[in-house]
Amino acid sequence: MPLTGQIELTDHRYGKAENRVVRFTKENARHEIRDVNVSTTLRGDFAAAYTEGDQRHVLPTDTQKNTAFAFAKDPGLDTVEDYAIALATHFVDTVEPVSSARIDVECFGWRRVSIDGAEHEHTWVRQGPQVRTAAVTVAGAGAQRRTWVLGGIKDLVLLKSTGSEFAGFLVDEYTTLAPTHDRVLATSLDVQWRFAEHSGFDWDETYTGIEATLLELFATTYSKALQQTLYAMGTAALERFPMLAEIRLTAPNKHHFDYDLARFGIENAGEVFWAADRPYGSIHATLQRADAPEAGIAWQP
Amino acid sequence: MPLTGQIELTDHRYGKAENRVVRFTKENARHEIRDVNVSTTLRGDFAAAYTEGDQRHVLPTDTQKNTAFAFAKDPGLDTVEDYAIALATHFVDTVEPVSSARIDVECFGWRRVSIDGAEHEHTWVRQGPQVRTAAVTVAGAGAQRRTWVLGGIKDLVLLKSTGSEFAGFLVDEYTTLAPTHDRVLATSLDVQWRFAEHSGFDWDETYTGIEATLLELFATTYSKALQQTLYAMGTAALERFPMLAEIRLTAPNKHHFDYDLARFGIENAGEVFWAADRPYGSIHATLQRADAPEAGIAWQP
Amino acid sequence: MPLTGQIELTDHRYGKAENRVVRFTKENARHEIRDVNVSTTLRGDFAAAYTEGDQRHVLPTDTQKNTAFAFAKDPGLDTVEDYAIALATHFVDTVEPVSSARIDVECFGWRRVSIDGAEHEHTWVRQGPQVRTAAVTVAGAGAQRRTWVLGGIKDLVLLKSTGSEFAGFLVDEYTTLAPTHDRVLATSLDVQWRFAEHSGFDWDETYTGIEATLLELFATTYSKALQQTLYAMGTAALERFPMLAEIRLTAPNKHHFDYDLARFGIENAGEVFWAADRPYGSIHATLQRADAPEAGIAWQP
Amino acid sequence: MPLTGQIELTDHRYGKAENRVVRFTKENARHEIRDVNVSTTLRGDFAAAYTEGDQRHVLPTDTQKNTAFAFAKDPGLDTVEDYAIALATHFVDTVEPVSSARIDVECFGWRRVSIDGAEHEHTWVRQGPQVRTAAVTVAGAGAQRRTWVLGGIKDLVLLKSTGSEFAGFLVDEYTTLAPTHDRVLATSLDVQWRFAEHSGFDWDETYTGIEATLLELFATTYSKALQQTLYAMGTAALERFPMLAEIRLTAPNKHHFDYDLARFGIENAGEVFWAADRPYGSIHATLQRADAPEAGIAWQP
Repeated sequence: MPLTGQIELTDHRYGKAENRVVRFTKENARHEIRDVNVSTTLRGDFAAAYTEGDQRHVLPTDTQKNTAFAFAKDPGLDTVEDYAIALATHFVDTVEPVSSARIDVECFGWRRVSIDGAEHEHTWVRQGPQVRTAAVTVAGAGAQRRTWVLGGIKDLVLLKSTGSEFAGFLVDEYTTLAPTHDRVLATSLDVQWRFAEHSGFDWDETYTGIEATLLELFATTYSKALQQTLYAMGTAALERFPMLAEIRLTAPNKHHFDYDLARFGIENAGEVFWAADRPYGSIHATLQRADAPEAGIAWQP
Repeated sequence: MPLTGQIELTDHRYGKAENRVVRFTKENARHEIRDVNVSTTLRGDFAAAYTEGDQRHVLPTDTQKNTAFAFAKDPGLDTVEDYAIALATHFVDTVEPVSSARIDVECFGWRRVSIDGAEHEHTWVRQGPQVRTAAVTVAGAGAQRRTWVLGGIKDLVLLKSTGSEFAGFLVDEYTTLAPTHDRVLATSLDVQWRFAEHSGFDWDETYTGIEATLLELFATTYSKALQQTLYAMGTAALERFPMLAEIRLTAPNKHHFDYDLARFGIENAGEVFWAADRPYGSIHATLQRADAPEAGIAWQP
Repeated sequence: MPLTGQIELTDHRYGKAENRVVRFTKENARHEIRDVNVSTTLRGDFAAAYTEGDQRHVLPTDTQKNTAFAFAKDPGLDTVEDYAIALATHFVDTVEPVSSARIDVECFGWRRVSIDGAEHEHTWVRQGPQVRTAAVTVAGAGAQRRTWVLGGIKDLVLLKSTGSEFAGFLVDEYTTLAPTHDRVLATSLDVQWRFAEHSGFDWDETYTGIEATLLELFATTYSKALQQTLYAMGTAALERFPMLAEIRLTAPNKHHFDYDLARFGIENAGEVFWAADRPYGSIHATLQRADAPEAGIAWQP
Repeated sequence: MPLTGQIELTDHRYGKAENRVVRFTKENARHEIRDVNVSTTLRGDFAAAYTEGDQRHVLPTDTQKNTAFAFAKDPGLDTVEDYAIALATHFVDTVEPVSSARIDVECFGWRRVSIDGAEHEHTWVRQGPQVRTAAVTVAGAGAQRRTWVLGGIKDLVLLKSTGSEFAGFLVDEYTTLAPTHDRVLATSLDVQWRFAEHSGFDWDETYTGIEATLLELFATTYSKALQQTLYAMGTAALERFPMLAEIRLTAPNKHHFDYDLARFGIENAGEVFWAADRPYGSIHATLQRADAPEAGIAWQP
């Protein structure tokens, strides 16, 4: 039955993506670096730009870029979360048509170059592949003001050579997988957590603590499935960090297949594997505190 | 105020991502090809795998892979949408713990090699960069059965050398952009549309028609902003294809900057541009029919 | 035996890589586009910059960028080869320390948007994934002047569903592959050809002709191995285009594996394949005319 | 003048690229990991495969894959260099048509997960982005046997916030760059070094030492140009490691541009930069000992 109802613009947003901002602090000889990728997204009263090409309410994305760079100087980038809160708040408070602003930040890691055990004062080497993320949404004014902060880590690549099995699963007519009681477990973890509050604790310490918790639980959980490992990681993070309301974990199961060397008269006792690219398992879990404050539009891109 | 509420698994899903399935039809000398990337996602009663490592309800992702390949043979891949509907329906209907299944398909384009104007019967050259997509979600049983189909296209790279301006915009203290009345407009379009029905019309014809509509409107719309262009494209697609309930368009504004050649005594009248990588504008629009059926979980990943 | 000889700077070069130049011709309502990625490389008397940090002979890479953009206006980008020759010649002729210059160009394909069969005058859609390439090296002055031109195509993805076998190969203790007399042959071709001359023929026609020749021979050669197919492609290109001195072909063997559906009671008669990512075969061939002029530094990066 | 000379196959090679081999040592509870990407390339008497499709001399690339995995078990992957030497030697010694074999290895870094200061016995987190490389070529038999070993590191991303200038350079009509006496210097270093010998020292220690030397010299060299920095790095590596014959350094100049905040009344004293993607400078240097043994085909891909 063909539709005939009126066509409506039901959602819209816009912004400047991937502003590559590098901020140094040079107050003394020992410089500091913050290397970030900042994306801005504005929601609000911009419908006329779509329906009529009327730009009167549209703050150019070029302006948003300028603002992202300017805010890197003042208030600065001491922490990516406070920077993003300040930037989002600025757009909501000073740009009339903006009803909410979201700031996404990727923060790239750098380690000081070390020479004979001494850290160099102004030279760094990139650390990865994992990237710290933050996504801040600010909406409303006055008593309606809401601020949501998501922290996160992505591309955290982990592997364990034992302590993982997969057995006792459901079998149907297309099932050919053999159960295994000792396998390699590997993943490239993407995690985001929602804070219940946005002050009163140290952003960087919390990030470091959550990352360490994820690593620890991946290592120490005897895994009957990647699902179980994710659940253990998420539970521990929420338990140890009471400022967290919710955590979402996404993990590819990066398959490592035993390479059949018996064909050549060689024993392969879990020593030689082929690391496959595609396809891969894809596992997701969301854990939340029963008393978590509502998420609002925190998870909207 | 630290949270103390109980930790709950509030959402979970899993599947096998990026099964690279290639299906030929060889019934006669003129072969046909369907080259797809298939991802499966199951939702349902899998909580015990997370909380207790109990796999009894878990259909292995390896099984899902086998099934994706088997279904490429029968019922086959004549259209990616019908294939995805069949595969999703299979999981919901035959795997007891599954409450809903989503199948994502990327479909890569191939053109027959042409020799002196004659198409070769079994040789192709890849066409791109644009990729056709489909995302089918099937949920429930009996009277509760729902089937949602999203069609789409991504990485459709478009450029026009005139017929685009950007002026009359909001100005604040961080605004330095000069208005322009003739600029290059370029984007790499990602679009998804939701069908109101899933039978009674030709999937391939509809796809081809929507793609042509998007190209046409991009070309013929005098653009006062990329927002306006997206709105025109979305409106035309909904108007011309009454089986569509909704369309979502995402478009980077791939900036092309006039290169300043006046410094060298050379006139550059909109002829030489630098195509920048980052940052880029990022524009989104969702259009929907007032009488669109509800979207349910169609847009959940 | 530790080495004690003096340390010498035995080679050096520098330039500006990946200048994304877009050039329009707007002489009439029907605009033309050339979209290229230009890299410059200079060789010559720059040793002092390395050994002493003395920049007096160093033309900044920023200047090379400016020049690449300026030359896109005049003499222009009618053909990428003539543009590259002009740009390389400029550096050798006007920048005293430069002994040779190499210009690498990637040229991205665009097709005009077609509306009801009519080509639009100023709107295009990107074509790919294949990319046309050119690499021009100019060296020396006066009678010593040499100009080498390499043309090429890369990322030309080809597939045939039959007409390919692989059998009768060498077998050793690690060989487990079964011979096959009907397989899928797929590759992503990278080819470069060296011209014996750099004028007297049409660059664009030659490119189009060589691309068509490669496609034709891939399609029509019954392949006993990818090696044989490459040889047939290269031979035909040299035979048909007498201005070519040499051709170099690089081709991954993009493996497509029959998916075993017999386990599910389903026959798979060469219809359903898994397209694998890694590892892949990697095949190379260089063909040259016996009377080819010497290549000099044409192949140096 | 069209060429008419006979078409000859002047070069050819083939192999299996990107075998993703992961090797664990599990002799005791503290496991060890080697995670590598191995590519094999064979040269020799394979012309008939090209010219006639005759595979009798062709060892399948599938066999080469099997061999790469088998050799990961025995002799094993204690060091990537010895593994590559063994594998290359095997092909030359046991496969009659092979005249030379090259093995390329990328070795991905993993760090043990640390829990409360204690290293976990079988869990690791990926380290990057830098990757260790090795490229071994073995040719000939008996007295003609030659073995070349290249070590290397790639994607080593370095940045210094001061201690770099660029001034006093050559100026021509296209030069607009202002000299600067304090800039950010950043690069993503790719380096390869050729060993004069292939035994008598510790491969891993040497690699670690060279990497530390490159970091140190990047940090401590006051840079008048990236050229000078590369030269200092290469010189120090050759001086400190007398088993090295030659070193080749390739470095993009990853430009960081001061962001103009003065427009907003904000001072930017070298604190806020835009990290650009393209174009980038591209600098190369090769340094060699005067008494280096000849390189033969060590640098052929």
